[in-house]
Amino acid sequence: MAKVKKAPRPKAQAPKGFRDYFGAEVTQRNEMLQKIAGVYHRYGFDALESSAVETVEALGKFLPDVDRPNEGVFAWQEDETADWLALRYDLTAPLARVYAENRNELPTPYRRYAMGPVWRNEKPGPGRFRQFYQCDADTVGAGSVAADAEICAMLSDTLEVVGIERGDYIVRVNNRKVLNGVMEVCGIAGDDKEAERGIVLRAIDKLDRLGEDGVRALLGEGRKDESGDYTKGAGLSADQAEIVMGFMSAKRSSGAETAARLSELVQGSAIGEAGVQELLTIAELLEAQGYGPDRIEIDPSVVRGLGYYTGPVFEAELTFEIEDEKGRPRNFGSVAGGGRYDDLVKRFTGQEVPATGVSIGVDRLLAALQMKGRLESHSAGPVVVTVMDKNRMADYQAMVAELRSAGIRAEVYLGNPKNFGNQLKYADKRNSPIAIIEGGDEKENGVIQIKDLILGAKIAESATLEEWKDRPSQYEVPRGDLVVKVREILESQG
Amino acid sequence: MAKVKKAPRPKAQAPKGFRDYFGAEVTQRNEMLQKIAGVYHRYGFDALESSAVETVEALGKFLPDVDRPNEGVFAWQEDETADWLALRYDLTAPLARVYAENRNELPTPYRRYAMGPVWRNEKPGPGRFRQFYQCDADTVGAGSVAADAEICAMLSDTLEVVGIERGDYIVRVNNRKVLNGVMEVCGIAGDDKEAERGIVLRAIDKLDRLGEDGVRALLGEGRKDESGDYTKGAGLSADQAEIVMGFMSAKRSSGAETAARLSELVQGSAIGEAGVQELLTIAELLEAQGYGPDRIEIDPSVVRGLGYYTGPVFEAELTFEIEDEKGRPRNFGSVAGGGRYDDLVKRFTGQEVPATGVSIGVDRLLAALQMKGRLESHSAGPVVVTVMDKNRMADYQAMVAELRSAGIRAEVYLGNPKNFGNQLKYADKRNSPIAIIEGGDEKENGVIQIKDLILGAKIAESATLEEWKDRPSQYEVPRGDLVVKVREILESQG
Repeated sequence: MAKVKKAPRPKAQAPKGFRDYFGAEVTQRNEMLQKIAGVYHRYGFDALESSAVETVEALGKFLPDVDRPNEGVFAWQEDETADWLALRYDLTAPLARVYAENRNELPTPYRRYAMGPVWRNEKPGPGRFRQFYQCDADTVGAGSVAADAEICAMLSDTLEVVGIERGDYIVRVNNRKVLNGVMEVCGIAGDDKEAERGIVLRAIDKLDRLGEDGVRALLGEGRKDESGDYTKGAGLSADQAEIVMGFMSAKRSSGAETAARLSELVQGSAIGEAGVQELLTIAELLEAQGYGPDRIEIDPSVVRGLGYYTGPVFEAELTFEIEDEKGRPRNFGSVAGGGRYDDLVKRFTGQEVPATGVSIGVDRLLAALQMKGRLESHSAGPVVVTVMDKNRMADYQAMVAELRSAGIRAEVYLGNPKNFGNQLKYADKRNSPIAIIEGGDEKENGVIQIKDLILGAKIAESATLEEWKDRPSQYEVPRGDLVVKVREILESQG
Repeated sequence: MAKVKKAPRPKAQAPKGFRDYFGAEVTQRNEMLQKIAGVYHRYGFDALESSAVETVEALGKFLPDVDRPNEGVFAWQEDETADWLALRYDLTAPLARVYAENRNELPTPYRRYAMGPVWRNEKPGPGRFRQFYQCDADTVGAGSVAADAEICAMLSDTLEVVGIERGDYIVRVNNRKVLNGVMEVCGIAGDDKEAERGIVLRAIDKLDRLGEDGVRALLGEGRKDESGDYTKGAGLSADQAEIVMGFMSAKRSSGAETAARLSELVQGSAIGEAGVQELLTIAELLEAQGYGPDRIEIDPSVVRGLGYYTGPVFEAELTFEIEDEKGRPRNFGSVAGGGRYDDLVKRFTGQEVPATGVSIGVDRLLAALQMKGRLESHSAGPVVVTVMDKNRMADYQAMVAELRSAGIRAEVYLGNPKNFGNQLKYADKRNSPIAIIEGGDEKENGVIQIKDLILGAKIAESATLEEWKDRPSQYEVPRGDLVVKVREILESQG
C-alpha cells in the first residue's frame, strides 16, 4: 500500500527504438539459438553469459564501426564518485574483459560461445533497433590458423543445422595480412598512413554498394554521393588503386589459383606473403575435413569493416535471391562474420593474446529461415474448454487437467462467459485447434461437444453444402472419450 | 585501425554486484527454464520478451518492496530534453505497459510467460546481485479466482517437472481480502489508517524471522531490534492484536476447517467474508483437478510483502531441510510467489484490469535442484585430439570432424603443441573423457592411441598394481575404428 501520488497517466509505450517480442517470435528464436548452441557445444565451445552491464572503462569508449564515431552506448554514472557503467554493445568486448579477469582459471585455448541481447545508443530506423540479439563463438589463446579454419567449418555446420541448405550459403574467407601486403605494395603501410588505410578498408567494404567506379574514386581523390556529401579519398595514384582493385577481383575458380594470384599482387611484401600462406593452410585444413569450395571459399573481396581484425576474416552470405524493397531480385546477403583479432585482451593485461571468432546476426538469420519456410510454426493455440455454466468451473478445470496430463496444450476460457460468441472469438484469436462444449444437456447425458475449429474454418471457406454435411466439424462423444477424441482430431489436423 | 589513445590499462573486472556465468551454470539454467516454459505453454500461456529498457515513467518510480524506498533502478537520461530510461526491475511492470500498449490486439484474457534478467540498483551482498533472472507467468484480464487456482496448479506442476518431488514442496494460498477483513474488524480499514495497515502487513510477513513476540510488538507499540534500532508499531490494542495473531494461526488440517476458522475471525466484514468464499472456491477447483492439500493448501500465514496485491496470494515453499550457515537444520524456504493485483494496468489506461501471476526465483530454484542432485551434469568435456606433429593438423582436424559427425563432442588441441604434458593438462581442465594420440609411429602403422581419461584417473587414484595391469586405460586401435572405439568408451563411462 505504497503511497502513489496522483500524476498524469504514463504513456504505455516501449522507449523509442526498443520493441517487444511475442509468442512464436520468442520461441522460434530460442529454438534456433538452441540448435546453434548444440553445434557450438559439439565443437568443444563452452557457454558464457557475462553481465549485461560493464564499466565504460572495460568496454572501451569506441564502438567497432569507425564510420560512426558519434554513436555509442547507453551509459550512466550513479554519482560523481562512481564508475561510469554501460550496457554492452557487443559480446566481444565483454569476452576480452572476462578472459583477462579469469585467465588463470580458464583453459587455454578458451573456446566460448555467448548468446544474448546487446544495446546500441544509435538512431533507430526501420528494422533497426537499439536492443538486438547476437550469437558469438570465439577461441581465445590460439594463434594457429587452425582455429580460424575451425570457426569457418563450425559456421558452415551451424547454417545447415538451423535449416539453410548447402548451396544456399557460402562462407567466404580472406586475410587482413594479404590486404596489409597490398597496402605495403601501394606505399601506405607506414604509421603516418593510418587514415589512408582506413579509407581503403572502408572503400573495399562498400564495393557492393558503390560499384567499381565508386570504390576507385574513394581510393583516389574522393567521392561525392547523391546527396552531394563529399567523402575524402585515400589519395592513391591510378597505379596504386589498380593494385587494390586487382586484389578485390583476385578470386579464381579454386583456392589454389586465387592464392597464386594474390601471391603475384603482394610480391615483395613479407606480411602479404605470410597472409597468402595462411589462406592456403586454411583451405587445406578445411579440405581435409570435407569442406570444399561449395561451402567455404577464399574470396579477397571480403574485408569486414572493423579496424581490429589482424588476420583471417570471414563472412557467411546467403546466396538465394529475394526481392528488394523495389521488387528487384538480389541475394539475401550476409548473416554472419568475424575474424582474428589479436589485440583486444592486451588492453587489460599488456600481453598479446591471439583470438578469433564469429558473430551471427540472429535477426537476419531468423528472417532468412522465415523466408525459406524453415521455421516451425508454433502458432498452434491451446484447446479451449468453453464455460457454459460458471458454477461448474471445477468440471471444466478437470477437463483441461486431463488434457494437459496427456501432454495436450489446453485451457479453460477465463473471461466473462456470458456471451458464448466471445468465447469462440477468443478461441479464434488464440488459433485454437479445438473447442470443447459441455452445457447442461450434455452434462446430463454424459457427453461433450468437440468442435474442430481448423476443419470448421476450412469448410466455412470453401465447402459446398454437400461436403459440409459429409464432413461435420463438430462431434458429440462420451465425456470419457475427451482425450482420445481430441488427440484424434489434432492428429488429423497434422 | 581506430585511433586508441594511450591510457592506463582498464581493470578487468565486472562492475560491483554483477557476475558472469560459465558453462554448466548457463546451460543448466537454460534447461530448467525450457522445462518451465514447456509447462507454461501446455497451460496455454504465450511467451513474451519485452525490452530490457523502459521509460522511467512507464516503470513507475517505486520498487515493489516498500521496506526499501531508497533503493531503485539503473536509470539515465540522454540529454535534458530526453525521456529518462531505466533497466526493468521486474517482469510485471513491463507486462502492464505491454498489455496497455497492445490491448486491442492481444486476446483477453491474456496469458503470458516471461523469462529473463532484471536489474536492481541495490547494495550488492553475498549471493545478492544487481542482475538476476526472473521467470513469471501472469493472466491479465481474468477476474475469476479460477485464474488464481490455475496459477497455483501450474506452479505445482512446474516444480515437479523441474525435479522437485511431491512432498518436498507445498504451495500455500491465502487471500488479501481476508486480511483486509481482519483489518476492518480491528478498526484500521479507513483511508487514514494506511500506514498502520502497512505496518501490520510487514509484521505478519516477518513471523518466521521475529517470532510471535516480535510480531506482537510491531502490532502494538513498536519494537527495538538487536542493534537498538526502533521500528514504530501499528498501535493496535491487545485485543485487536489478538485478532491478527489468531488470523496467522488459523490454519487447520483441512481447507474447509481453515475457512471456517477464518470466517469466525472476519465475521461482520463483507470483504473478509468474500475473501473466505474465494479461498473455498480455489480449494474446490484445485480438488476437482486432483491437487490436494499435499500439494496446495490454504495457509493464512502467507502474506507476501508487496503492497499491490488485492486478492489471493500464493507462495511455493520447499520443505526439505538444509543446513543454515551455522549448521542448524532449517527448511529450504520460498522459491516462488505471487498473487492477484488488479491495479497495475489502470496506471496507464484508467480502467481497472484484473490480473494474477507468479514469479519463480530462478537462482533459488536452481540452488535447490543442485542440492537435490537433480541437475544433469553437463560438465562433460570434449574428446581432445592431441597434436603430435603440427604439420599434420589436417589429419587431426579430420578426426574431430568424424567424431562430430557422429554426434560426439570433440576438438583438436589448438594451443602450442610443443609440450605434450600441457595438452594432457588442458584435457584435464576441460574434463575431457578421452584423449586421442597419433604420433609418427602410429601414423605409419595406421593406428591411433585412445586414452580413457576417466578410467585412467580412477585407476591412478585407487588401483593396485595388478588391477592397473588388468584394466588398461589406453588402447591402440586401427585409425578406422576411431568413432566405434570412442563411442564404446564413452558408453562404458556412462
